Amino acid sequence: MTTNGAEHDGPPRVAAVLTAGSWGTVFGKVLADAGRRVTLLTRDGALAERINKEHHNPRYLPAVRLPDLVRATCEPAEALAGAGLVVLAVPSQALRAALAAWAPLVEPTAVYVSLMKGVENGSCQRMSEVISEVAGVGPERVAVVSGPNLAAEIAAGEPAATVVASASPATAAAVQAACWTSYLRPYTNADVVGCELGGAAKNVIALAAGMLEGLGFGANTLASLMTRGLAEVARLGTALGADPMTFAGLAGLGDLVATCASPLSRNRAFGEKLGQGMTMEAVLDEQRQVAEGVRSCRPLLALADRLGVHMPISRQVERVLYEGLSPLEAVKDLMSREPGAEYREPMVPEARAAG
Amino acid sequence: MTTNGAEHDGPPRVAAVLTAGSWGTVFGKVLADAGRRVTLLTRDGALAERINKEHHNPRYLPAVRLPDLVRATCEPAEALAGAGLVVLAVPSQALRAALAAWAPLVEPTAVYVSLMKGVENGSCQRMSEVISEVAGVGPERVAVVSGPNLAAEIAAGEPAATVVASASPATAAAVQAACWTSYLRPYTNADVVGCELGGAAKNVIALAAGMLEGLGFGANTLASLMTRGLAEVARLGTALGADPMTFAGLAGLGDLVATCASPLSRNRAFGEKLGQGMTMEAVLDEQRQVAEGVRSCRPLLALADRLGVHMPISRQVERVLYEGLSPLEAVKDLMSREPGAEYREPMVPEARAAG
Repeated sequence: MTTNGAEHDGPPRVAAVLTAGSWGTVFGKVLADAGRRVTLLTRDGALAERINKEHHNPRYLPAVRLPDLVRATCEPAEALAGAGLVVLAVPSQALRAALAAWAPLVEPTAVYVSLMKGVENGSCQRMSEVISEVAGVGPERVAVVSGPNLAAEIAAGEPAATVVASASPATAAAVQAACWTSYLRPYTNADVVGCELGGAAKNVIALAAGMLEGLGFGANTLASLMTRGLAEVARLGTALGADPMTFAGLAGLGDLVATCASPLSRNRAFGEKLGQGMTMEAVLDEQRQVAEGVRSCRPLLALADRLGVHMPISRQVERVLYEGLSPLEAVKDLMSREPGAEYREPMVPEARAAG
Repeated sequence: MTTNGAEHDGPPRVAAVLTAGSWGTVFGKVLADAGRRVTLLTRDGALAERINKEHHNPRYLPAVRLPDLVRATCEPAEALAGAGLVVLAVPSQALRAALAAWAPLVEPTAVYVSLMKGVENGSCQRMSEVISEVAGVGPERVAVVSGPNLAAEIAAGEPAATVVASASPATAAAVQAACWTSYLRPYTNADVVGCELGGAAKNVIALAAGMLEGLGFGANTLASLMTRGLAEVARLGTALGADPMTFAGLAGLGDLVATCASPLSRNRAFGEKLGQGMTMEAVLDEQRQVAEGVRSCRPLLALADRLGVHMPISRQVERVLYEGLSPLEAVKDLMSREPGAEYREPMVPEARAAG
C-alpha cells in the first residue's frame, strides 16, 4: 500500500550519490561506514577511475580514504541500478536539469535524499519541491538531510549530529538507519520545510558573518548578527509553514553556528573576501565550488517579498552582491537602526520602549 | 506613587559602579560616553588614584582611555552619594555580603542595575533576587543588563547590542537611555528571569564548549553542543517562568555565541584549559578573575533538580569540575546517547523515531 520500499524491506542496502562533490563524497563514505554499498556518479572519467583504484577523491577529499564499499562511475544508469537510496548533491540551480535526465533511470520504489541547501531561481522552490515535481514522486519518497555538517570534519570522523526530515516517518527512519555511524548521529524530524529553509537561508546569513570577519569585527558583533539572522530565517520559515522550533535545533541554530564559526565554510569564506574588498565576480572566479548563499539570496528574498516577511540582513547581503553596496556601509546601516525597530516582527524577545 | 525616580526625572545623571573589574569599568565608560557622571568603587587605593590621575584602569583595561566623567574612589559613601543608578558588578557569590554593607548608603530612589551573571550558592537565587532581598527594594527598582557583551570589544567601541530587562518598563527605559551610545544598542525586555538565567546558565555551556576546543574538536561538534546547550538552558528558564523566546534573542543565543566563539571569554578559556588536561584547582590558581560558570554550575543544577529539568551538558560539566571525570569521557558520554533521547523534553525540534 506504499511506494516506499523502505517500510517493508528495512533500510536500502544500495545507494547512488549524485554527484561526487565534497559533501556528496563524504556522505557516500558515511553510508558505506553504515554498511551500504555506494556508487558515486561523476562526469569526470579520470576521477571515477582514481576513486575506484586508489579509494580516495583526489579532487575534493585528497586526504581521506574511502571505504571499499564506495565505487564511482560516469554512467548514471550504472549508478542508479538497484539503488534504493538516491542521494542528490548537485548545485541547487543545476538540480532540475540534472534530475530530468536521471529520473527515468531511478528504481520505482527508491527514496530520494537531498543534501542540497538552496532555493531555485525563478520558481523559488525548495530542493525537495523540485525533486517531487521533476521525478514525479510524492513527499513520502523524499527526505532532506541538514545540520551542522562541515564535510571535512565528518570525513575526519569528528562527532557530529544531523537531522533527517521527511513527511513520512518510515522514510525518515530508513534514511536515519542508513547514515547512522559511530561519528554521525541522525535525528528525525517531520518538518521538511523548516529543515530545508533553515539550511538554505542560513547560507545568506553566513555571507554576512563572513563580511564582518573580513572587516575585522569581533565576537559581540558576530553574535548579534547571528541572533538577528536566525530570527529572520525563522520568520520566513514560519510564514512558509515551518515549525518555529526547528530553527532552535540542529538544522537551524546548529547549522548556522557551524557555518558562521568555521573557516571551512564556503559561504563564510566567500563573505570574508567580500569584506576584504573583493567583488562578487572576483570571488566567483576564484572558488572551485559554489557558495550556495550567493545563488539563493534573491529567490529567498523573492519568497520573503511574496509573504511580506522582513529580512533586513539578507537584503543588505543582496545589495552588496548585486548592487555594489560596500560591506562596511551594509553593516553600518544594520547597526544604526533604532533599537527595537528590528523586533517588531514575531520571533522576537525584546519589547520596544522609548529611550 | 512610584519609588522609581527615573520615571519622573528622566535618566539618572549620576551613577556608581560597584566595582571596578573589567566589565564594571567598561560599563562605567559606556555610561560616561552616554553623558553620565560615573564613580567606580574599588578597594584598591592605588588603583583609584591611578584611574583619577591617568584616566585608565591599569589592572583590567590598560589600553583603554576612560572618559573624564569617570572617577574612582575607595569610599562606598562617596561613590553612592547622589547616584541614581547603582551598577553592581561583583562576583556573584560575593554580592550578598558586599551589598549588605553598601545598601544603607544608597539613595532612596536609586535604581539597581545588575551586570552579574550567576546564581547564588545555597539560596539558588538569581542576582536580582539577592538585590531585592538584601537592599529591601521591589522589582521595579532593579534592572538586569545581559547580552553578547565581551568587555574588551565594547571598550574598543566595536558595535554591539545588549538587553536591559526590568519588571518596570520605566526603569528599563531609564537604564536603556543611560547606556545608549553610538557603539552599544540596548533593547528593553520585560523578562528578567529569562535574561538573567540565560546569562548565568550559558557560562556553564561555555565551559563545555571550551573543553571541546581544548580537546581539539571542530565546528560541527561545537555547534551541536551549543544547540543542545541552549535547549537545556531554555528548559530550565521556562520552568522558572521565563519567556522561551528570550533564549532565541540577544540575552540567550546572542550571549551564548559570543561567549563560546571568543577566546576573550573567561568561561570558554577556563574550559579550554580543562580540555587540555589541567585540573579545576590549577586553572583557578592561574586566573585573575572568576569564571562565573564554575561557581554557578552547582546552584543551577540544584534549581534544575528542584524543578525536574534535564540538563545533561551542565551535569557533565559538574562531573568534570567536581568529580574528576575527564573531559574526553564527558564528551564521549554525551555523544554516545541514542539519537532522540535528548529530545524528549520541550524546546526540542526533533521527533523521536526508531532506527
